[in-house]
Amino acid sequence: MMIIMKANATPQQVEAVIAQVKSEGLNVHLSQGVEATIIGAIGETHSIPPDRFEGLDGVESVQRITQPYKLASRQFHPEDTRVTLDGFAVGGEEIAIIAGPCSVESRSQIVETALAVKEAGACALRGGVFKPRTSPYSFQGLGEEGLEFLAEARDRTGLPIVVEIMSQVQLELMARLVDVLQVGARNMQNFNLLRAIGEIRTPVLLKRGLSATVEELLMSAEYILSGGNRQVMLCERGIRTLETSTRNTTDINAIPVMKNLTHLPVLLDPSHSTGHADLVPAVARAAVAAGADGLIVEVHPDPAHAVSDGKQSLKPEKFAQMVDQVGQIAQVMGRRLAVVRGEHPSARQGWT
Amino acid sequence: MMIIMKANATPQQVEAVIAQVKSEGLNVHLSQGVEATIIGAIGETHSIPPDRFEGLDGVESVQRITQPYKLASRQFHPEDTRVTLDGFAVGGEEIAIIAGPCSVESRSQIVETALAVKEAGACALRGGVFKPRTSPYSFQGLGEEGLEFLAEARDRTGLPIVVEIMSQVQLELMARLVDVLQVGARNMQNFNLLRAIGEIRTPVLLKRGLSATVEELLMSAEYILSGGNRQVMLCERGIRTLETSTRNTTDINAIPVMKNLTHLPVLLDPSHSTGHADLVPAVARAAVAAGADGLIVEVHPDPAHAVSDGKQSLKPEKFAQMVDQVGQIAQVMGRRLAVVRGEHPSARQGWT
Amino acid sequence: MMIIMKANATPQQVEAVIAQVKSEGLNVHLSQGVEATIIGAIGETHSIPPDRFEGLDGVESVQRITQPYKLASRQFHPEDTRVTLDGFAVGGEEIAIIAGPCSVESRSQIVETALAVKEAGACALRGGVFKPRTSPYSFQGLGEEGLEFLAEARDRTGLPIVVEIMSQVQLELMARLVDVLQVGARNMQNFNLLRAIGEIRTPVLLKRGLSATVEELLMSAEYILSGGNRQVMLCERGIRTLETSTRNTTDINAIPVMKNLTHLPVLLDPSHSTGHADLVPAVARAAVAAGADGLIVEVHPDPAHAVSDGKQSLKPEKFAQMVDQVGQIAQVMGRRLAVVRGEHPSARQGWT
Amino acid sequence: MMIIMKANATPQQVEAVIAQVKSEGLNVHLSQGVEATIIGAIGETHSIPPDRFEGLDGVESVQRITQPYKLASRQFHPEDTRVTLDGFAVGGEEIAIIAGPCSVESRSQIVETALAVKEAGACALRGGVFKPRTSPYSFQGLGEEGLEFLAEARDRTGLPIVVEIMSQVQLELMARLVDVLQVGARNMQNFNLLRAIGEIRTPVLLKRGLSATVEELLMSAEYILSGGNRQVMLCERGIRTLETSTRNTTDINAIPVMKNLTHLPVLLDPSHSTGHADLVPAVARAAVAAGADGLIVEVHPDPAHAVSDGKQSLKPEKFAQMVDQVGQIAQVMGRRLAVVRGEHPSARQGWT
Repeated sequence: MMIIMKANATPQQVEAVIAQVKSEGLNVHLSQGVEATIIGAIGETHSIPPDRFEGLDGVESVQRITQPYKLASRQFHPEDTRVTLDGFAVGGEEIAIIAGPCSVESRSQIVETALAVKEAGACALRGGVFKPRTSPYSFQGLGEEGLEFLAEARDRTGLPIVVEIMSQVQLELMARLVDVLQVGARNMQNFNLLRAIGEIRTPVLLKRGLSATVEELLMSAEYILSGGNRQVMLCERGIRTLETSTRNTTDINAIPVMKNLTHLPVLLDPSHSTGHADLVPAVARAAVAAGADGLIVEVHPDPAHAVSDGKQSLKPEKFAQMVDQVGQIAQVMGRRLAVVRGEHPSARQGWT
Repeated sequence: MMIIMKANATPQQVEAVIAQVKSEGLNVHLSQGVEATIIGAIGETHSIPPDRFEGLDGVESVQRITQPYKLASRQFHPEDTRVTLDGFAVGGEEIAIIAGPCSVESRSQIVETALAVKEAGACALRGGVFKPRTSPYSFQGLGEEGLEFLAEARDRTGLPIVVEIMSQVQLELMARLVDVLQVGARNMQNFNLLRAIGEIRTPVLLKRGLSATVEELLMSAEYILSGGNRQVMLCERGIRTLETSTRNTTDINAIPVMKNLTHLPVLLDPSHSTGHADLVPAVARAAVAAGADGLIVEVHPDPAHAVSDGKQSLKPEKFAQMVDQVGQIAQVMGRRLAVVRGEHPSARQGWT
Repeated sequence: MMIIMKANATPQQVEAVIAQVKSEGLNVHLSQGVEATIIGAIGETHSIPPDRFEGLDGVESVQRITQPYKLASRQFHPEDTRVTLDGFAVGGEEIAIIAGPCSVESRSQIVETALAVKEAGACALRGGVFKPRTSPYSFQGLGEEGLEFLAEARDRTGLPIVVEIMSQVQLELMARLVDVLQVGARNMQNFNLLRAIGEIRTPVLLKRGLSATVEELLMSAEYILSGGNRQVMLCERGIRTLETSTRNTTDINAIPVMKNLTHLPVLLDPSHSTGHADLVPAVARAAVAAGADGLIVEVHPDPAHAVSDGKQSLKPEKFAQMVDQVGQIAQVMGRRLAVVRGEHPSARQGWT
Repeated sequence: MMIIMKANATPQQVEAVIAQVKSEGLNVHLSQGVEATIIGAIGETHSIPPDRFEGLDGVESVQRITQPYKLASRQFHPEDTRVTLDGFAVGGEEIAIIAGPCSVESRSQIVETALAVKEAGACALRGGVFKPRTSPYSFQGLGEEGLEFLAEARDRTGLPIVVEIMSQVQLELMARLVDVLQVGARNMQNFNLLRAIGEIRTPVLLKRGLSATVEELLMSAEYILSGGNRQVMLCERGIRTLETSTRNTTDINAIPVMKNLTHLPVLLDPSHSTGHADLVPAVARAAVAAGADGLIVEVHPDPAHAVSDGKQSLKPEKFAQMVDQVGQIAQVMGRRLAVVRGEHPSARQGWT
């Protein structure tokens, strides 16, 4: 960490900063230039926020040199992390396609969708049962009953299930029943939830917040990793920008950026990142061409009557076309689509 | 709600939309123009999300005419809501100034600060004990012990205390001990937390999310209001924009916008909305000149050594100057600074 | 255009709006619903800005139904526009790759680069001679001498040249000497320049502004088209967002969005949209996978010593690898890379 | 300027950077820490863009320590610049209020408005004759005839006139006839125009671009200042953000930020920064409370029938109320409203 002093900083102010650096257990490297005095703070700086120094008199600014995350960093963990599900791994050569409806609406709806997306080439099933809705008056999800329907769809297809968790109080139930816990964009900085998830060992799909930077996403992953849960997958889902023709702006740059910075698998959600079903296939292809490890896509047997997100949900036949195109792009990239083994334990513990 | 059909929509598609509108319990007003067919959906539309119609075939777009919130709307509640604390009310003629450190650090630090801000003219004390930090390695707050210190500061000064809550699991403790629950920017869309807070009757200070629109803030207030808790104050605290010279961009427009749209009190936090102590007084004055009902300001007896947010914390003497300036602006606005009665029940139930 | 009246609008206000609509030469379609009165304004509304009605008493808001552009719209011109250069067309089956340095620095630099990018598979040469620099103290380009060097590079390789124009006063010179006029991001709404370019017949590459919406880009294209110059190509080059790890955020959604809205060719500039050479190939592949008609890429024989944009310039060998990858993606998309005929008239008129 | 090398940079790479620094005429201060090697580049760095070093192998990042502008900087010019118009100065104790219609529409409209705004307390008259419109089909201004009407309004009231210039080709005409040249948001980085304006001596009102940072605005001012024209006033007019309830977001922070960074006068345009007439008075008061040196406000005798921007234009009586409120805030700030002398030379050279 470099602490840049103001041009007119006094020797006393420089001394005070040095004392503060030392009191944090860091070593000091002093560089007195003509333009400015720079105090290098050396050691385990990733755990020290810049605001420990920014308030000191005479300080112009504080610049990090090393990343503020460590467990998520590729620097300290060069090999790709692979999150193994049922017969396939996310983060290796395979491209994982997770698909399903925004909300679980009924037993038949989720089973029908599960069969269709598996047929089309998906390797996991998504479906929301606790829904983060902007309005208190909107449908909030089927809750525990929805989980039961999802489990049945898993039993019928062998597809592992990916379900969003919204609160610590749902954790015990969810950890027992789902294969991948999804943390949604609005909870990316719900630090209590992240910390709680760090304590268990269920794989996690952590989505980027609507206006979070890549670094903030990695810091949120660090919360989970530092608790001991290393099964973390990241997901770009679009950010809020000035553009109004789409629901969000897909940050396609974030795919290669994150592949450089971290060893964790990186997925993309083209349904939320565009908000329009007819844009999903193009952006799904782009994601894989840019190096994404997978996709999570909203598919609904009857989007027109979906209780939520119908506008951005693909019909199963359009989804199947998309999977076919994505498979061809994967091949150019030297990769292949992940295939679920399909022998998922129907006799999963804790569920009867 | 108006559903605008595509230019080439078929009569069958129009019929299907009409059927869907009716199935939501709404009435239909059909307008077949030359440019477009528009289907008006009339009734209790605030509880129906546009995506119920956006996915239907032939639909171009859906426009709300009425606001999606009702309890928060000034339309249905023209008089200002006043949240009464100890001898003063927020939301009326008085300007409330809440002040205190980012984090409670020690008994002496919070008591010293409380005495200083009261002396300078504050009417309530802020202080964090559970801290939402971007990094898992940063100081996370003193927790319950911090609450004890805050309560002592309240006993010594009579200032009501405003404390951030981060999770449902802290609710029982917090509701018992604090005077105002603060919901921070990162939890503005933690809907489970909002719903839980709606169930109790402690006043709430709800801060706008980093990238939330004013409408989204009002929708989050609606979550609390719809639970029955009507003691909600809103707080602008800066949004994330392209500008890099400040930590956030104070959305000063939001003050008159919200005063028009809602009857709830509107405060501004110039410490977070600027990120620099030397910008705080100018923006505090601006807030009151624009019509804000109060301010929440970070004050620390020794900002240079604050464990967090030292850069944006005022020293007590600078804060006193700021209060003086704000008082003069308040006078021009026909208002006056709120004064705490100072007889806050030291023998508060539940705390021994 | 729909004019939505306020709930409490008076009949007189409705009458006044109707009169104003008629005075604009539009027909009126009145729809008096329970929730709101809506006045449909029907006719040639694309030429009428909403602010003709927004200021009228009793008006809540004004919504366009039809697009505000006409010549750029695919609705009125369903077939793709193809801009023909030397033996290839942009906007058809072929993918055009334009490459070259940010700035023309010397005769040898541009000739060397031209030879290298042609060898690697580029079909046109870019190079700046008038440079829009944020600082008045930065290198502002070689000016007319740079054009001479570019012409020599064209003579040696047959590659058409793409050069940025910054001002009306450069138009005569540029129109005489370059094959494609580039309008840069900072001039996207320099309406005088757009209008002047509309008067000539040189093909144009119009780049999206740093914070322009897609609709605004199409409106700027409309300025050129309405002057009679129909040879317009659009270029996404990244927008300014909250993300700080990259120079800009590539709006990959904009590729399929624009391909839907307009018949004009759509290119992407991965050098500016990322700002880092090592991100360029991934984003270039993504662009073609998303449906882009071409790329414009910064290539420099010695990026480390480039006078500008060295950080985002590819070395020729990296560029060649990128072209190879992009070619494979093009094939999956049923397209192929454009190849220049290479018989570009060395005896071009006006240049001696 | 500090050049931070990558952790694994080789000694050869460090040497190459040092050589490049020296070749730019700068001195080197080398600091080899444990975490990183930092190369300080010392000297006239404001004229050297970071991209001279960012492309070099082994470079992690480049940080400026000193500001990239010099003539605009308060560091080198501590006293406030005052731009003197007719009997008053902008940038001193007085608060200048410039008012008038978006567009000059007719002789009677501009004369009537001029009389009204002078009566209400304005000290200068604004009015557009060349209009930067998003659509080529919108009203583009009266052009030279409009200037004639403005001059007549000036003759009748003595108010100096502030008029937007859109292109170099208008410069000779405008410089001869107007008192203050306004550079609009869309031309803030039209560097050719800025350079041309730097060559003359007419005062300039330079508006911030829709998505420009404060630093970029100051760099654009530097273009004008470096040409020798020191009569530059800056104007905040709102930036484009995520908020949709207002046309732009007023960056109120920018007022004290700019007053710290530069000696140039800083104004605010609450009409464009909000987009709604009913928000203008609140934001105008806030601007002055935050330390602005003046306001530029849209006023129209009949906003409902304005050819442009009617929605955000104040009626004269509302404007008069606003001036009264602003005057009271000015008093609290120890300032007063500027008053035009009213003896403006009706026999201005060049106009007959």
